[in-house]
Amino acid sequence: MIAIDAARLHRRLDRLSRFGALPGGGVTRHCWSPPHEEARAWLLEEIRGAGLTAWVDGAGNVFGGTGIDGFGGGRPAVLTGSHIDTVPEGGTLDGALGVVAGLECLETIVRTKTATRRPLAVAAWSDEEGRYGSLFGSRAFCGLLDVAKIPEMAAVDGETLVSAMRRAGFDPARIPEAKAPPGAVAAYLELHIEQGPRLEEARVDIGVVEAIVGVRRSRVVFHGQADHAGTTPMERRRDAFLGAADYALQAREHVVTRGSGASVTNIGVVYVHPGASNIVPGRAELVHEMRDPDAAVLQRLATDGAALAERVASARGLRAEVRPMSATTPAICATRVQEAIERACRALGLTSQRMYSAAGHDAQNLTAITDAGMLFVPSVGGRSHRTDETSDPHAIERGTNALLQTLLTLADA
Amino acid sequence: MIAIDAARLHRRLDRLSRFGALPGGGVTRHCWSPPHEEARAWLLEEIRGAGLTAWVDGAGNVFGGTGIDGFGGGRPAVLTGSHIDTVPEGGTLDGALGVVAGLECLETIVRTKTATRRPLAVAAWSDEEGRYGSLFGSRAFCGLLDVAKIPEMAAVDGETLVSAMRRAGFDPARIPEAKAPPGAVAAYLELHIEQGPRLEEARVDIGVVEAIVGVRRSRVVFHGQADHAGTTPMERRRDAFLGAADYALQAREHVVTRGSGASVTNIGVVYVHPGASNIVPGRAELVHEMRDPDAAVLQRLATDGAALAERVASARGLRAEVRPMSATTPAICATRVQEAIERACRALGLTSQRMYSAAGHDAQNLTAITDAGMLFVPSVGGRSHRTDETSDPHAIERGTNALLQTLLTLADA
Repeated sequence: MIAIDAARLHRRLDRLSRFGALPGGGVTRHCWSPPHEEARAWLLEEIRGAGLTAWVDGAGNVFGGTGIDGFGGGRPAVLTGSHIDTVPEGGTLDGALGVVAGLECLETIVRTKTATRRPLAVAAWSDEEGRYGSLFGSRAFCGLLDVAKIPEMAAVDGETLVSAMRRAGFDPARIPEAKAPPGAVAAYLELHIEQGPRLEEARVDIGVVEAIVGVRRSRVVFHGQADHAGTTPMERRRDAFLGAADYALQAREHVVTRGSGASVTNIGVVYVHPGASNIVPGRAELVHEMRDPDAAVLQRLATDGAALAERVASARGLRAEVRPMSATTPAICATRVQEAIERACRALGLTSQRMYSAAGHDAQNLTAITDAGMLFVPSVGGRSHRTDETSDPHAIERGTNALLQTLLTLADA
Repeated sequence: MIAIDAARLHRRLDRLSRFGALPGGGVTRHCWSPPHEEARAWLLEEIRGAGLTAWVDGAGNVFGGTGIDGFGGGRPAVLTGSHIDTVPEGGTLDGALGVVAGLECLETIVRTKTATRRPLAVAAWSDEEGRYGSLFGSRAFCGLLDVAKIPEMAAVDGETLVSAMRRAGFDPARIPEAKAPPGAVAAYLELHIEQGPRLEEARVDIGVVEAIVGVRRSRVVFHGQADHAGTTPMERRRDAFLGAADYALQAREHVVTRGSGASVTNIGVVYVHPGASNIVPGRAELVHEMRDPDAAVLQRLATDGAALAERVASARGLRAEVRPMSATTPAICATRVQEAIERACRALGLTSQRMYSAAGHDAQNLTAITDAGMLFVPSVGGRSHRTDETSDPHAIERGTNALLQTLLTLADA
């Protein structure tokens, strides 16, 4: 059984972590930013140095292939990959691991002259973290991007995708060219850190992803009345922030007690207007996010949330407005990919357990065009989207070998 | 009995409302901003045109006097006034009324050649609304400004007082010169809109202010843990925003049920970090304001608030930090000034009632150096710090005549 080169794998992870590195650890590497573009150039060099063909598509997705130099026809390829962009003040493994491990697997196959029936390729998908639009590169590749909306795609600070791409030397008019022809991908497999504590606590080596949660985001706005915070009698105030606070506490309780058990919820964005200490808040805006692996549960929770906003508003003399922002449907991983991962784990003497992914991943877009799946390695303390995100080096090696064996199975299928 | 010129009064109020006027009504006129500086230039012209002497002190306070051209010695003057700066998206009367009405009274006295024993002056105090520091001009005048802290004084957007003053052509090094010599002011009287609904509801013409509430502001910070909003189990999250929401609801309840009855509270500033929809809030900051006319009550509520923050934080696995930002002590209006206002109301056939001011005013600083008082006219619907702030024109005229008669009493006393 061939095996990956652990030293080479860690050397590349370490090198990649320096692009956009923060003084206290961790990394900020937004897609199209200078550190990201330096990382892209480095990755292309590494792909070529590994004996693979390298190419970049119209959405900025980077590919390295063996037996393939593009998706313009030819035999369906087995694809692996992840992303090299990060959240602000993120960790060094989220995304980076799947790209570097995929490259390591392909280099191992090439260096060992292992023959496969299907060509193989590794992808680094653009802007997975969605500074300009979530899972952007894989959406473009899978034909799930609304091309008409590209000019409106923008970061929260107002910078548009179009201007960010141009600054990085890309032509936004070529984004549609990234769409893969039907049948181009035989299977997709992504290695990722779990980003949660379940594997570590269960002392299991590998998570086999059955489904990726759907995510619904809504803007929940409470409209009250801005008034003088000294002279307006307390009982007459229509305080929008108190409505938002009431909603936040009740919404959390509702999802925990009435969700599926796998349901999670977060309110991470809060704006209070006009934002002066001596003015009663006239408007409060929340971004309310809910996740569940079951689409029906998610729909029910969203309906309940809107009703709760109405109840809270009406009890407090406010007006509630709930505007859906985005909604992804839960994605089901292919049974044959799950089984191939489990087979690889058994062959390697690794323990595995089936689980769902509570985070969104490029793999969910790939389920729309091919048999797709994911495998997870444990995250230390379950930490992720943080500068101290990490995984045990041996766990990373085990995961990469499981990725290699599964890719070989899929490439010979 | 001499009387003010109502047409001239309203003409000036209307003219002043155009500096910084907003398209939909109301006005934004921050101290030292271009619209404020245009208003200052206009006011100086009006003062001179009214037959008064005009001067501006080192803190940017504008004065118009009869029988006086500065506070460098000479006979103690009876002083009236208010301010011409506004909150963002404020109304046309808050502050403006007291300045224009004071000018109207002095012009009436001058034009009618009414002799008074004491000189009189009208003041427009700088930055009452405290973009750079609350009640700034009157603090400087009354010797209550910590001169060493001037370089640190800044607006929430980071602009410093020093740079704002320089931009407006003022030398910040001269601020200390604004301090009035001991005994310079014989009495101070300020006319203001009530900014609340009590006079209107009681159908009373004039409010006679007994005390101005003390205001305490604290920054209440909850420290939790920023985590991935999908993969972190709900029961393990340390969500700083939920702590802030819990605190806000309980703090409001506590002040309403355990305060003096006159106690009010507001949380008008809320920041949630890092502010991403898919990250559990790691830090939430509130500015918590409380007001009461009784210093002991205010102190008790502040102590209770800090204890509440601790309780909420400890119940939710958070850490609370309560940092006092500012605290004014309640100010007591001089009995002889209150009595003089009531005498003027009786002479004019106006109804009056004693009340406290739930808003801060320059008058509270003047209580530190002289016998000071305030009279209020009703606010329509109690509205203030809003673009639709207004008062009945006849109520304004009645209030200005009451101001005139009271000033005459104080100037002859």
